Amino acid sequence: MSLRMIEVGCQIFIRRDGYSFLDPPKSELLYEIWKNGSLSGAAKSLKMSYQHAWNLINEINKTAPEPLVLKQRGGTNGGGAEISGYGKRILTEYNAIEKQINKLTYQINNEINF
Amino acid sequence: MSLRMIEVGCQIFIRRDGYSFLDPPKSELLYEIWKNGSLSGAAKSLKMSYQHAWNLINEINKTAPEPLVLKQRGGTNGGGAEISGYGKRILTEYNAIEKQINKLTYQINNEINF
Repeated sequence: MSLRMIEVGCQIFIRRDGYSFLDPPKSELLYEIWKNGSLSGAAKSLKMSYQHAWNLINEINKTAPEPLVLKQRGGTNGGGAEISGYGKRILTEYNAIEKQINKLTYQINNEINF
Repeated sequence: MSLRMIEVGCQIFIRRDGYSFLDPPKSELLYEIWKNGSLSGAAKSLKMSYQHAWNLINEINKTAPEPLVLKQRGGTNGGGAEISGYGKRILTEYNAIEKQINKLTYQINNEINF
């Protein structure tokens, strides 16, 4: 890396028939849901509106081969949500892929000199 | 890859101090300019408005450590444009990085089973 802080980065996504259902912001939201067990809690901790989080989840579930999030709108806690078994498998895999690709990107950043 | 055509993809970008100045659509525009020697020709072949291409180039040149495109607005051919020596170096490097990362992504796609 040069002193000007030029660096190569990589955004990893997973597509189904050409449509992406997992990318860094989506995986971040899913991890928060996994941690919180609630969509409103996840949205809050990411400073995202509840409606936006809800829309993202709908988009993810519609595009993925199976729903990644099981959700219940409304209720006292603003709607419970949990990551499905398939969702947990995909997220774990996504994380492993990110690590592999980030390792290569790190090596590239040590070699380049822009 | 499963029969449902689930695949991992990767968008590579180059950032300076956190701001990206090169990513797949930007590099596509730059390659077209390199080929065409004109901004309007490049915009046309990418079905992009001239103004949008012009704005993108301004953004790239402002963010990169040195201008990647040397341009001249107006004139009979709608404004000549050429890729600077630095731009050619960066684009060639970007292309090589893309190849390296795509090779890994290809391997990953052969291994995963979502």
